[in-house]
Amino acid sequence: MPARPVDVAALVAAARSGSPRAVARLISLVEDRHPALREVMAALAPHTGQAFVIGLTGAPGVGKSTTTTMLVAAYRARGQRVGILAVDPSSPFSGGALLGDRIRMQDHVLDPEVYIRSMASRGHLGGLSWTTPQALRVLDAAGCEVIIVETVGVGQSEVQVAGLADTTVVLLAPGMGDGVQAAKAGILEIADLFVVNKADRDGAAATVRDLRHMISLGDRTAPGLWRPPVVTSVASRGEGIDEVMEGLDKHREWLQSSGTLQQRRLARAADEIESIAVASLRARIGSLHEHAGLNRLATDVVAGRTDPYAAAEEVVAALT
Amino acid sequence: MPARPVDVAALVAAARSGSPRAVARLISLVEDRHPALREVMAALAPHTGQAFVIGLTGAPGVGKSTTTTMLVAAYRARGQRVGILAVDPSSPFSGGALLGDRIRMQDHVLDPEVYIRSMASRGHLGGLSWTTPQALRVLDAAGCEVIIVETVGVGQSEVQVAGLADTTVVLLAPGMGDGVQAAKAGILEIADLFVVNKADRDGAAATVRDLRHMISLGDRTAPGLWRPPVVTSVASRGEGIDEVMEGLDKHREWLQSSGTLQQRRLARAADEIESIAVASLRARIGSLHEHAGLNRLATDVVAGRTDPYAAAEEVVAALT
Repeated sequence: MPARPVDVAALVAAARSGSPRAVARLISLVEDRHPALREVMAALAPHTGQAFVIGLTGAPGVGKSTTTTMLVAAYRARGQRVGILAVDPSSPFSGGALLGDRIRMQDHVLDPEVYIRSMASRGHLGGLSWTTPQALRVLDAAGCEVIIVETVGVGQSEVQVAGLADTTVVLLAPGMGDGVQAAKAGILEIADLFVVNKADRDGAAATVRDLRHMISLGDRTAPGLWRPPVVTSVASRGEGIDEVMEGLDKHREWLQSSGTLQQRRLARAADEIESIAVASLRARIGSLHEHAGLNRLATDVVAGRTDPYAAAEEVVAALT
Repeated sequence: MPARPVDVAALVAAARSGSPRAVARLISLVEDRHPALREVMAALAPHTGQAFVIGLTGAPGVGKSTTTTMLVAAYRARGQRVGILAVDPSSPFSGGALLGDRIRMQDHVLDPEVYIRSMASRGHLGGLSWTTPQALRVLDAAGCEVIIVETVGVGQSEVQVAGLADTTVVLLAPGMGDGVQAAKAGILEIADLFVVNKADRDGAAATVRDLRHMISLGDRTAPGLWRPPVVTSVASRGEGIDEVMEGLDKHREWLQSSGTLQQRRLARAADEIESIAVASLRARIGSLHEHAGLNRLATDVVAGRTDPYAAAEEVVAALT
């Protein structure tokens, strides 16, 4: 089925002038891998690089939605345009489908300076690594000064979100075995700011103490490195927002003064280029498949006549 | 640091003659991506293709370890050599590290006809998709007639394990919101056999009924397709093993008589070849990186002078 034609220049102009509908359509083009995507990305490029990207991750139940809502309110109070990408690594549903779950977000649903988008990553090649950076470019070019990428911390998603963000916020709640979780998931390495949410519950002080202790044992205490602060909040009541914003602002200042911001963005762009290049090479392997070359090699591997490495070498030789 | 030299022919011969130490060493070579890996895979190839691979997946707490133990006992009673790969998609630990957790496996730890190996997949490129197929080849060539790949069903792991297995067993337990979980995770599409474990608990009959109802609504009820049976067990007491084994045996017969076994194995080999080829192409992109080409392109993307697609096109052109 041929894709519907798209007036890319008009769509990008409309998104830049603040049309939520145009932004939504551009993100749908990203998710659908529409043929016009290359043209879209070329048109967006000159307008990107302004947004500050916050990654927000944590286990189910720690209060990611309420924390995002609290952050949105704080950035809106500063007069900034805000984008939210809620990425669910376990869901096959995308677009508007998840918005029904996000009841607490409804304070901001009607605010034209706030874009909210739920994206699925399950089933996408590479999960977060493929569609999310491109959706970020759309929101960035549409004038969002802050973009919050919110994702459930399961599997590798929290490491992936850290790879996309300028600042990574790891959210925890008391009494969820946080200490062990933190060590296991490697979040000590990726967090720029720890927020212990639901701090009115028993065990909050212990969670803060455990985290600080673990941070003190790590390798991020050397001079010149950023040592992630640990702050507390009760996001459902907006408590702790000043401390959270202070932590975010300080990290942003440090990113700029230390040159880390540019380094992170270069690394992020290099990853993005690499994944697009790899996808393009994969597509070429796919066309080999259609021409029966890969099928013949697979048959030889199953029969034990060759091994996967030798077969892969033939594939690479055929491509290059 | 140069890798320790390996006498591949001697190691493969020792593994084939039943040395657990040689098998362990070969799997370590896989995990370490040792330079001798290509030679190892070439030496193993003629001895592969005999093992029947069972993927076993389910949420935490459904009883995967006890079910694996029950299956091992049943296959050992048939005199078969059994391999077990326990893949933890959330753990950075590998090798012997997790064996301490597998107390219930100790019945079999000293049985020379049972190989048990825990593998981490977190942090590995592509998770299960890279190291596990190669570890399967090692166990296959070492004469395991049955290999059980056990993995926690989080993120995409249960879909990945289905891609590796001849028969995929999805384990559930009553009272865990199974119906919704099943629909969400897409396990209806991947399961060849459902086992409702802990069937002595409240709600087991309802879980079985819900599953059967969902299967009846799906597209696997057409003539000639395999309709996944739903059986119950109490693995900790060995109850239900006959029904589980009957389900496994029947599926295996169907795989062979329908030609699906060969199809699945061809698809698996093609995936494996493709991921090795892509990794090899990635390594070439990495060497581009060292030559500053990718860094220059990333700088242009961050500055908005180009977009990631145009940059990726330059990368692909430089490689091919």
